[in-house]
Amino acid sequence: MAPGATIGILGGGQLGRMLALAAAELGLRTHVFCPEQDSPAFDVCRRVTQSSYDNEAALDLFARDADAITFEFENVPSSAVAFLRARRPVLPDERALDMAQDRLKEKEFLRALGIDVAPFHRINRLADIAPALAEIGLPAVLKTRLYGYDGKGQYVLHDAGEAEAAWTAVGETASVLEAFVPFSREISIIAARGQDGGFAAYDPPENQHRGQILRRSLAPAPISQALADQARDIGRQVAEAIDYVGVLAVELFVTEENGKSRLIANEIAPRVHNSGHWTLDACAVSQFEQHIRAVAGWPLGPTARHSDAVMDNLIGDDIDRWPQLVAAADTRLHLYGKTQTRAGRKMGHATRLAPLGSFGANRPVPETAA
Amino acid sequence: MAPGATIGILGGGQLGRMLALAAAELGLRTHVFCPEQDSPAFDVCRRVTQSSYDNEAALDLFARDADAITFEFENVPSSAVAFLRARRPVLPDERALDMAQDRLKEKEFLRALGIDVAPFHRINRLADIAPALAEIGLPAVLKTRLYGYDGKGQYVLHDAGEAEAAWTAVGETASVLEAFVPFSREISIIAARGQDGGFAAYDPPENQHRGQILRRSLAPAPISQALADQARDIGRQVAEAIDYVGVLAVELFVTEENGKSRLIANEIAPRVHNSGHWTLDACAVSQFEQHIRAVAGWPLGPTARHSDAVMDNLIGDDIDRWPQLVAAADTRLHLYGKTQTRAGRKMGHATRLAPLGSFGANRPVPETAA
Repeated sequence: MAPGATIGILGGGQLGRMLALAAAELGLRTHVFCPEQDSPAFDVCRRVTQSSYDNEAALDLFARDADAITFEFENVPSSAVAFLRARRPVLPDERALDMAQDRLKEKEFLRALGIDVAPFHRINRLADIAPALAEIGLPAVLKTRLYGYDGKGQYVLHDAGEAEAAWTAVGETASVLEAFVPFSREISIIAARGQDGGFAAYDPPENQHRGQILRRSLAPAPISQALADQARDIGRQVAEAIDYVGVLAVELFVTEENGKSRLIANEIAPRVHNSGHWTLDACAVSQFEQHIRAVAGWPLGPTARHSDAVMDNLIGDDIDRWPQLVAAADTRLHLYGKTQTRAGRKMGHATRLAPLGSFGANRPVPETAA
Repeated sequence: MAPGATIGILGGGQLGRMLALAAAELGLRTHVFCPEQDSPAFDVCRRVTQSSYDNEAALDLFARDADAITFEFENVPSSAVAFLRARRPVLPDERALDMAQDRLKEKEFLRALGIDVAPFHRINRLADIAPALAEIGLPAVLKTRLYGYDGKGQYVLHDAGEAEAAWTAVGETASVLEAFVPFSREISIIAARGQDGGFAAYDPPENQHRGQILRRSLAPAPISQALADQARDIGRQVAEAIDYVGVLAVELFVTEENGKSRLIANEIAPRVHNSGHWTLDACAVSQFEQHIRAVAGWPLGPTARHSDAVMDNLIGDDIDRWPQLVAAADTRLHLYGKTQTRAGRKMGHATRLAPLGSFGANRPVPETAA
């Protein structure tokens, strides 16, 4: 793809917006397809289609305008992707989407690669929960197979008597029961693979959640180089197994057993990821530019950090702190242009930078900035 | 101005485009007004008005949509600016535009501040040239007072017999005759002033021109700290004298006399400047973000470099080298989305980064990257 070509983006949220901004820096045009009015990405792209994903006439026009198509979230209806794929390259391709849309397939895929996952069990009906719990133990987490994100469609069971409540909570739908992992911390690997098979990964950040929403990523995670290398290898294994093109994230639990750290894969996101937002400010090439390079068939860029970074999500009313954040010399503010503030809504993020070596293994985690 | 507000931008070229991208990162919307179809900035802003600058109905709608208005070039017709100013804040204001649009006023303004300029003479008619040359000496440069940029409207005289050729070349219009400055190098100061009077400046780059178009900026310029401080002071004097808001550039000649370096001011650009493009990649806050912060009434950000930088303009066919440039790990590519390549047209730029201390005083200038 040459400069001036158009990348179609399915989804117009903040991830689509940051992808569009990265494409523009490289002289590429974007066309954003999204059902919601006033989508954040609409403000920064050349063309907009506001339509539902089942409108084939709109999808057809969108495909005609784009040289290649990508997406900002894995829950794009597969019928829309199939329709588009018949007309234009969609990257990453169906193998990534099929796997990431279904939590059961995802776990089986990881296990088949020899990557550690928490013990899990397929749940098709309420009656499946009790025997699965007997095998897996407590606590355990019931998660819907489809359409889960930010902890939605999940229920943590601390007692076998909660089976019915859990089943109701996930909407009485095909699910997976997973053993609860007693982790010491959560990290992620943000990796990229190009059309030429080139692979690159950023240093894994530590991720801190509250109410099952990411609040903070700390780059680099305070872990050993050996563990960071292992995380990177997991990213590579996943990407190569499905001939992946673009950026993907693998969320990982770090557990401690007999004084030894171990990684357990939790989830794969076949897209740019919230825990990689700090790359915008701490690296020469961000995860967004990296994804655009891969989709465009261009070589991947460097992933080295020039700074350590703490990224804090601005969720709901956190946005009201923008005047302090924009005034802080060590902090870079990113706002998504969302007009309505709602509780739990990601309104922006702020990344505090510090010289290399400020964080990382055996260093204290800095105070909260946001 | 709060996030979600709209900044109107007059002019839709690459400077307007990079301003719009910077505004978007901060959650601000942009509306670009530009007469030319397919303007580069149109691809990355929320709203577009494609209209001539004398269309008052279009200007009125533009003003109604914007919370504040700025511009990417100083040759916006002053009638349009006056019309808009009656409706919305236009920043920087008329003092900057009046001065920068007229090369004679600009020189007089600089001289009144005690800033060194080359000897100059007002030229109203052909007959004014001979006596002016007698006073100023040869070589000398005849420059139109209005609408000059990138060396357009200029003629270098090496011989008094060239007066008529020079007068024809500048279009037989009100001009200034300037002594040719025998400079050792050209530098610029990129400075910013906020609505709160805050002042910030980047380290001055050295600028290399070919055919009177900027080809390369090298940051930092290989000059002494004392000279850099002096350049910074010139930026501050200019900005404070006219209560300036936004980013401005002052182009400066460095001359050597009796082993002592001296700065001679050449030109003021009341806007973001080509010689500041390297700030996108070598600083946490670029000149574009800095300008948007000032126009929005937000505090200025830091101007420190985290890297040394060489910025090469991609002019005309230079754009054909994009595959090599995008593959170079130390180089950041910026393309402007222009669909037609023409000789002399700025199509993009590439910034090569190097660790701090790689360039600067007494270091060899690196090989050309582009």
